[in-house]
Amino acid sequence: MTSLADIGERAALREIFSIITRSQTITIGPGDDCAAIEIKNDYLLASTDMIHIKTHIHQKMRPWQIGWFIAAINISDIAAKGGTLLGILMSIGLPRQAPIADLKEIMKGADACATHYSTTIIGGDLKEASELTITGTALGIMPKNQFMSRSGCQPGDIVVVTGELGKAGAGYYSLDIDDEFAAAQKSLFEPQPRLHEGIYLASQQQISSCMDLSDGLSTSLYQLAEINNIGFEIYQSKLPLSPLLIDLAQKIGCDPLSIALHYGGDYELLATIPSKYYDQLQKNYKKNFSTLTAIGTVTKKKTITLIDLSKTYTLPNKGYEHFKS
Amino acid sequence: MTSLADIGERAALREIFSIITRSQTITIGPGDDCAAIEIKNDYLLASTDMIHIKTHIHQKMRPWQIGWFIAAINISDIAAKGGTLLGILMSIGLPRQAPIADLKEIMKGADACATHYSTTIIGGDLKEASELTITGTALGIMPKNQFMSRSGCQPGDIVVVTGELGKAGAGYYSLDIDDEFAAAQKSLFEPQPRLHEGIYLASQQQISSCMDLSDGLSTSLYQLAEINNIGFEIYQSKLPLSPLLIDLAQKIGCDPLSIALHYGGDYELLATIPSKYYDQLQKNYKKNFSTLTAIGTVTKKKTITLIDLSKTYTLPNKGYEHFKS
Repeated sequence: MTSLADIGERAALREIFSIITRSQTITIGPGDDCAAIEIKNDYLLASTDMIHIKTHIHQKMRPWQIGWFIAAINISDIAAKGGTLLGILMSIGLPRQAPIADLKEIMKGADACATHYSTTIIGGDLKEASELTITGTALGIMPKNQFMSRSGCQPGDIVVVTGELGKAGAGYYSLDIDDEFAAAQKSLFEPQPRLHEGIYLASQQQISSCMDLSDGLSTSLYQLAEINNIGFEIYQSKLPLSPLLIDLAQKIGCDPLSIALHYGGDYELLATIPSKYYDQLQKNYKKNFSTLTAIGTVTKKKTITLIDLSKTYTLPNKGYEHFKS
Repeated sequence: MTSLADIGERAALREIFSIITRSQTITIGPGDDCAAIEIKNDYLLASTDMIHIKTHIHQKMRPWQIGWFIAAINISDIAAKGGTLLGILMSIGLPRQAPIADLKEIMKGADACATHYSTTIIGGDLKEASELTITGTALGIMPKNQFMSRSGCQPGDIVVVTGELGKAGAGYYSLDIDDEFAAAQKSLFEPQPRLHEGIYLASQQQISSCMDLSDGLSTSLYQLAEINNIGFEIYQSKLPLSPLLIDLAQKIGCDPLSIALHYGGDYELLATIPSKYYDQLQKNYKKNFSTLTAIGTVTKKKTITLIDLSKTYTLPNKGYEHFKS
């Protein structure tokens, strides 16, 4: 019998999408960062993510960080559409011998993240399981006409990213060395989704497509390219590599570009914007937040190329795919 | 270190509730069947339930039924408040060697349940896990002034239940004997939450408290009693025991009353109503639906007593509690 390992996560998701009966009233369903349901002039946004101790949680993560993490990654999906948070649901499965102290720390971390983003844990479930399993669900709301879909970009649009790339990757690759990279490790285990940035970008009504970078830049670009039937030219020299990643590369000899392109875990936003709006948006954004960096352009040609000073090559799609060996 | 097995599910939930920062805008939070968030004149309702193959899924359940079940039990939480469904999220974790055919059947079952209740699967997550794990989340909406809370009943109110009691229990206790109880087994594995009944009851704005019977009648009565600081007198002869349960008891010699009181899994609604509204509500309800049975009254005295023809005794609270041995 065909197993998930044989076909991988994305083919399995396609199978699932083909089974689901589509609704006339759900404008945005499976395939975007979150679902969007029309309620009068608003969209109700809903996103859910499940993590399991053996496959998704690094052994160095403290229970408090696990709680923060699951809340944060769900908040990031609402951030990527520009929504305001309504609340977080937390379902936790764990072995009966699990220390109650760990459960409390997980909840404290989730509560701290929710509070940090001015929302609350509104409900959840607690069940016995063979391994620690947490499903977070984030709910949000926003005006319909501000929704930043994954689809909509056109050739000529400018590609932008918030913040820095590869900080979480630097955290991961420095876990076994020393404390010099504590800030990177913190950003790996306690991501700070770009909620306020997403709300701001959405409010400008100029973004032509947007998603979060949880799976890494290369995979995210491939996803946007497929959805929009376009390609990208990305300028290597423009990529806002995290200074911590550069430092780490000098120390341990890893390839910072590869980590910034493929590792993921940054929870920054990747967006496109028609070029006529770019200068003004960039200027206004910087008044309120830190960096918004133009890293390339949307092309009619459907390939994704990385342009270096000396050469141009097709960007490999090396993001993580579940189940595939 | 204190484990979950030491303190049990309810004490663990109390610990969690004490950690969560409460919001000013969330009127109904953890502790009711679902969370309710104020959006203008409506409540957005959200409920989530997690199940794991080893601890919650009977080996005789087919994957299609597992999918139906997780959608149904979440829908039941929305039904218990009187909400209209907005959509279902499904997060599935499973081993990489799991057959893709099983995943498809699970999704077909969930989709069939969603469609049956005029809603759709709007999103979810798919992840690798050590054992099959599913978290369902149901979203609903309703006018604020119709919300049926768990709290609000007063001494003198009539206690009612929808449908029959012990049908799911009859399904469970007949699993190993023969096909004569196929209807009971179907109701155990493919519960039919009382969504339309809940919406109708809520629309009458006369219900003083309501919850679903997923955990069994005795546990549910104890929960309502604690929340409302009241007690109950329940008339044994009035309990609408499922005819299938009576048949089964005659066949295998089990105690039908005990199963009807304690087994759970029926996903009927348990509600209270001021006595002045009862006759008219009962009459109107029966025009639209089947049975609404008065089984007792709310008392000022805080005990829960079961009144038999010959004797009166305190109802034991024998519902299932996770983690406790």
